[in-house]
Amino acid sequence: MSRRKTGNNQYLKQRNQTVILDLIRVYKQKSKTELAELTGLSPTAVGVITSCLLKDGYIHEAGTGDSKGGRRPILLALKPHSYYAIGVDVDVMYAKILLVDITGNIIEEKTQSVPKNATAKLTIAQIEQGILQMLAQKNIRIQKVLGIGISIPGLVNHKNRQVVLAPNLGWHNVDVYAHMKQFSDIPIYIENEAMASAICENWVGLCQGVEHFICINIQSGIGAGIFVNGNIYRGVGGSAGEVGHIVVDETGPRCGCGNYGCLETLASTYHMVQEAKKRVRQGIVSCLNDVEALACISIETIVDAARAGDQAAYHILKEAARYLGIALSNMINTLNPSKIVIGKEFVKYADLVLEDVYNIVQAKTLHFPTSNVEIIASKIGDKASALGAAIIPLKVLFGR
Amino acid sequence: MSRRKTGNNQYLKQRNQTVILDLIRVYKQKSKTELAELTGLSPTAVGVITSCLLKDGYIHEAGTGDSKGGRRPILLALKPHSYYAIGVDVDVMYAKILLVDITGNIIEEKTQSVPKNATAKLTIAQIEQGILQMLAQKNIRIQKVLGIGISIPGLVNHKNRQVVLAPNLGWHNVDVYAHMKQFSDIPIYIENEAMASAICENWVGLCQGVEHFICINIQSGIGAGIFVNGNIYRGVGGSAGEVGHIVVDETGPRCGCGNYGCLETLASTYHMVQEAKKRVRQGIVSCLNDVEALACISIETIVDAARAGDQAAYHILKEAARYLGIALSNMINTLNPSKIVIGKEFVKYADLVLEDVYNIVQAKTLHFPTSNVEIIASKIGDKASALGAAIIPLKVLFGR
Repeated sequence: MSRRKTGNNQYLKQRNQTVILDLIRVYKQKSKTELAELTGLSPTAVGVITSCLLKDGYIHEAGTGDSKGGRRPILLALKPHSYYAIGVDVDVMYAKILLVDITGNIIEEKTQSVPKNATAKLTIAQIEQGILQMLAQKNIRIQKVLGIGISIPGLVNHKNRQVVLAPNLGWHNVDVYAHMKQFSDIPIYIENEAMASAICENWVGLCQGVEHFICINIQSGIGAGIFVNGNIYRGVGGSAGEVGHIVVDETGPRCGCGNYGCLETLASTYHMVQEAKKRVRQGIVSCLNDVEALACISIETIVDAARAGDQAAYHILKEAARYLGIALSNMINTLNPSKIVIGKEFVKYADLVLEDVYNIVQAKTLHFPTSNVEIIASKIGDKASALGAAIIPLKVLFGR
Repeated sequence: MSRRKTGNNQYLKQRNQTVILDLIRVYKQKSKTELAELTGLSPTAVGVITSCLLKDGYIHEAGTGDSKGGRRPILLALKPHSYYAIGVDVDVMYAKILLVDITGNIIEEKTQSVPKNATAKLTIAQIEQGILQMLAQKNIRIQKVLGIGISIPGLVNHKNRQVVLAPNLGWHNVDVYAHMKQFSDIPIYIENEAMASAICENWVGLCQGVEHFICINIQSGIGAGIFVNGNIYRGVGGSAGEVGHIVVDETGPRCGCGNYGCLETLASTYHMVQEAKKRVRQGIVSCLNDVEALACISIETIVDAARAGDQAAYHILKEAARYLGIALSNMINTLNPSKIVIGKEFVKYADLVLEDVYNIVQAKTLHFPTSNVEIIASKIGDKASALGAAIIPLKVLFGR
């Protein structure tokens, strides 16, 4: 009985420590007195807990607050550069690696190239190498790393840290943790890339404190991370959010999934680049013709051309936006979210087409859910998944 | 301090009473010893609580169980016909009224006709009349009624018991509770009809214990109740599940919502009846021609004709099923549910088209979520919403 009680006390102490650390994060700066008021804990208990947090280096004394009669209270804040988390966004030709500190600030980032057709084992070894180099450059001991989050463009089982299927990477049932030989002592988390972006938007982006939102990523593929009641929604097998395969035109092009007219086949950057190449080949008068080598056409080329007044390029962006609007309309009717954040490559041309997206949604969605939803472009762009992955160990630290 | 403690004790006692009552419901029959084991409460506490429940008439002694050495234990069970709940499904020309007892068994049901174009006030007065008659016939005192649940084909605010908008009823910002003058002393709950059906499937139907499922109702309109993590999902404004307005064919017919090619315009029973009338007018050879008066064509006529071998009628059902399959495919890709239950009028022809629905889903959805989902027809049919509405007061009683 007494041992059980000790166990409970230990649990409670740990829990209270997490709560206080999270309050300091949320409020940026708080005095011990304020923390006692916020938590209902005794000043003595708060004193013990904050002493531990100071000793372990999670927080520091960041200045003094206004006096309420007596001495000016010392304000506690998260200690920058005290502890770190690493986020990795694995893609076909490269992996983006981010180092953030406990405050969520990005300390360092790099893009690690990965050989074409590399095995999962080789890719992971390269990523490990990249992380070790980054830590060495920044002179950070591995003991200061709270964990590594890895974002994967595919279906993951985030509980057993297996990649079930990532078609573009050619990964099938890959046990990421087993391959991470250099980091066997620190927590490893894996997450789907769209869900990682949604976590990022919810922690530091445009959906902080938002209960029901959809974060949709436009790049060579399209996927969404869905938040329901303030938490990521995974569905029964972890594949929720595969909105790139919503059928937006039954007579549309064939998709890699075998179906026809999936959103991905009509609104992804891959599709837009293919469309642009087709038009150049057809000799449609446009400044896209200036691009001598067809191979050089990218979403950036198209966006630049559209900005320079090229109607053909602009039309490609607008058509894609129209299909995106149809898919969003389906999602809004089905899920009645309060926000939709569109991210990744979309950020590069959002100003050109966001109004088109919104007009299609207005025309094609019921009035009530449309009047309740805000559709916006992410401000984070292509590092959202790496940052979201890095945030996962922070969420664990702060008990979120 | 001491008063606060008493308050907490009262709360705990009430909470434990609810837990025990719910365990008796779930396990059908349990002895006091078993209840003590299941809850971790002392035998004395369980004795006090079950005495209260027996005294208040919620449970009864239903027999004796197997002896484990000593006396054979007395088994406790919910007492049928002890307390009741009422469910009402309000539709355009009628309201279906159900009386269930505490065990969830349907005791009585009736269909109360409502004058065409009746005001909300008049409709509600007629419903009240119907409920009072039913209670009088069954000799049930109003004190024995735990609550009334009302299912509405439209957008409801279930917290303030307002119908925000029910287009088919012509209701707009109707305060149902304020109109229920005869029942001001008992709890009134309002719920969207598709969500009420989903509650029904989760409590007594095919989705008991299922965390993530969609209950989709096919009738003159189409709507869905979505369960996420074991609870109804409403979205930010309560309009989640408006899947009747998923666009399944952009070039399709105009919908009442102003859009084109919504699922409702291609898969509802209203649409199918219109299609059948068109074919009869066109003189397409079919036993639908036997229906002399066009006005008499209904979904039942079409189903009967299809069963009798009429290919035109069968085609109408199959085409609607195809569009339903496309919409389900979108929902499955987005939500990765483990079950989809299709209900209401669909139950009348499910055996004729369920395979078509499934084949379309297989062809148009990603492999992984498809392999995880079961698509089935409801076994409850057109009383699902009334029964779901009646279950709401029971859920409150059992703390669910």
